[in-house]
Amino acid sequence: MAVRATVPVRDADDLSLAYTPGVAKVCAAIAEQPELAHDYTWTSQVVAVVTDGSAVLGLGDIGPAASMPVMEGKAILFKQFAGVDAVPIALDCRDTDEIVETVARLAPSFGGVNLEDIAAPRCFEIERKLQERLDIPVFHDDQHGTAVVTLAALRNAARLTGRGLAELRVVISGAGAAGVAIAKILLGAGIGDVALCDRRGVVCGDREDLTDVKREIAGLTNRAGLTGSLEDAMAGADVFIGVSGGTVPESAVARLAPGAFVFAMANPDPEIHPTVAARHAAVVATGRSDFPNQINNVLAFPGIFAGALQVRAARITEGMKLAAAEALAAVVADELTPQRVIPSPFDERVAPAVAAAVAAAARAEGVARR
Amino acid sequence: MAVRATVPVRDADDLSLAYTPGVAKVCAAIAEQPELAHDYTWTSQVVAVVTDGSAVLGLGDIGPAASMPVMEGKAILFKQFAGVDAVPIALDCRDTDEIVETVARLAPSFGGVNLEDIAAPRCFEIERKLQERLDIPVFHDDQHGTAVVTLAALRNAARLTGRGLAELRVVISGAGAAGVAIAKILLGAGIGDVALCDRRGVVCGDREDLTDVKREIAGLTNRAGLTGSLEDAMAGADVFIGVSGGTVPESAVARLAPGAFVFAMANPDPEIHPTVAARHAAVVATGRSDFPNQINNVLAFPGIFAGALQVRAARITEGMKLAAAEALAAVVADELTPQRVIPSPFDERVAPAVAAAVAAAARAEGVARR
Repeated sequence: MAVRATVPVRDADDLSLAYTPGVAKVCAAIAEQPELAHDYTWTSQVVAVVTDGSAVLGLGDIGPAASMPVMEGKAILFKQFAGVDAVPIALDCRDTDEIVETVARLAPSFGGVNLEDIAAPRCFEIERKLQERLDIPVFHDDQHGTAVVTLAALRNAARLTGRGLAELRVVISGAGAAGVAIAKILLGAGIGDVALCDRRGVVCGDREDLTDVKREIAGLTNRAGLTGSLEDAMAGADVFIGVSGGTVPESAVARLAPGAFVFAMANPDPEIHPTVAARHAAVVATGRSDFPNQINNVLAFPGIFAGALQVRAARITEGMKLAAAEALAAVVADELTPQRVIPSPFDERVAPAVAAAVAAAARAEGVARR
Repeated sequence: MAVRATVPVRDADDLSLAYTPGVAKVCAAIAEQPELAHDYTWTSQVVAVVTDGSAVLGLGDIGPAASMPVMEGKAILFKQFAGVDAVPIALDCRDTDEIVETVARLAPSFGGVNLEDIAAPRCFEIERKLQERLDIPVFHDDQHGTAVVTLAALRNAARLTGRGLAELRVVISGAGAAGVAIAKILLGAGIGDVALCDRRGVVCGDREDLTDVKREIAGLTNRAGLTGSLEDAMAGADVFIGVSGGTVPESAVARLAPGAFVFAMANPDPEIHPTVAARHAAVVATGRSDFPNQINNVLAFPGIFAGALQVRAARITEGMKLAAAEALAAVVADELTPQRVIPSPFDERVAPAVAAAVAAAARAEGVARR
């Protein structure tokens, strides 16, 4: 990537505007009336894509320098898919409070913060503390981007098969950043029941090995009171969502309810091969571009930030995320097939539709500032 | 300003390279062989333009948000004048160690750090501590950019009037970031003697009110053992350099040695009007674009960073700064007139000449890494 000047600097007049002495008037004006920063600088239009390099893709803890290609790629996608400027920031620190403090100090330079590839469970606390401190959107994409796109695909799968969200029982394999966020957004969208599973099985209140985050989610999910293994939970479930990196045997998929949905989203190797899953499921999705129904975050984050920045939202609320998922689903609602419950990343209708829905939801929820 | 993708993302193949799954291979390669980051990311080609907003132009302490126009303008000049990508970073913190710690945490994302508009004396300590910690160039432009351009103009003024640097006695008005750095580079270049003056007069060792930085510089300068006021020091001096924002009466300029040089660089109001100064001086320079001989930092910082990044220099040494000044002076060495001792900012020979000299000096001094 590169930066680009949006004003010419060809002669002394241009130079005296872009730099001293002309720029002094702009600074003085902003010092007097801080709102002018939104018109006179790029600040409120640029997103910091921030990581500590601790949970990069499936590679794990490879450190800040090696994580830069993901951050830079993400910055490019922000620009290409929604015209949002973004700057990759890989931090050389790990402590939760240090990361929070560092990003808070950077905040005057940015209009939003996209957290990326930060290990669970500290990613949850970092996002919460930052959002409490800052009045610009803080959004951990590994959680909420994935959750929004998953909900959109699930909405359309339900629509295609004539079912209501309230009647669906969902099993999620993987209780990290993505799994927890998916569970929360599905509950917010009115799904019937969700059971979250980690490597030790169903996350339920009577387990003694739970982190704070898992304990909280145990209290919100699993109304059916399931215990035992992932495979136990899958028996009779309507939806399997994999964000684990593990594998699921065909026998477990075969025990899902008739007409089930299987979203096997681990990358690069889905929890179960989509061809195998299709033997037992009505709708199959993966995280891969070479199979139908790719659950790809790029369907969400560019439009979500574009909408939030457009109205200068102070945060990204649950309502804005739900609105994003609905708008994303609606893009292909009239074109649904089992191989097409989610738009292609290159569907040019996506980012504008998501941005408009997010901006409207921000206004409705009172977090918009213009 | 804006960011720009330098690779296309038009279809699924492009997307799988810029983002998952393709980007994972790039990350894994860098994790194994960190040197590859220089080829596979923008990191080593991008400069952070960092401020705390505490000493912005002549406006003083206006805070980080209001300082963004200067940082953004600077980033644009980096790009326009030397093709160097730069990102404006205005920090919401003031404590020296906090600033050092924050920038150090950011460092994996950048190939260099340009410190800007940070108040003296903490700017000195911040630069020193950061450079000790980081193996990328850290350069406080208000100090060294100004110093390099001033030295270049002084070299050419001496050349034009047939004098050697060793025979010149210089008086500097202003003992802040720029004044201290100018004094140091002039001594490094072999100037005869330098007296630095603050509001209380000549900075000399028997004063009791000096900061650590001023005490250090008192030990390096003023071999003549001057005491008293700025005007006292100016009597018989060969060169007056103003970086103070104060005013100097014509009577004081009249007492300079015959054929003196007056560089009255305060902006927007020079210490003495250049037309008045010209009555008593052989060469007059200012910081303004509407008079001849503009001492403008943009003649230095783009080329200096371009050269340093080109050879992946670990730091910017005194030798590299001296080489930059020499190269800058040499650009117009064959075209000298009293109205032209320094090139125009739009002279396209400048940045390449400075970059080449800085890269060569970095190699010669053993700080280049390619």
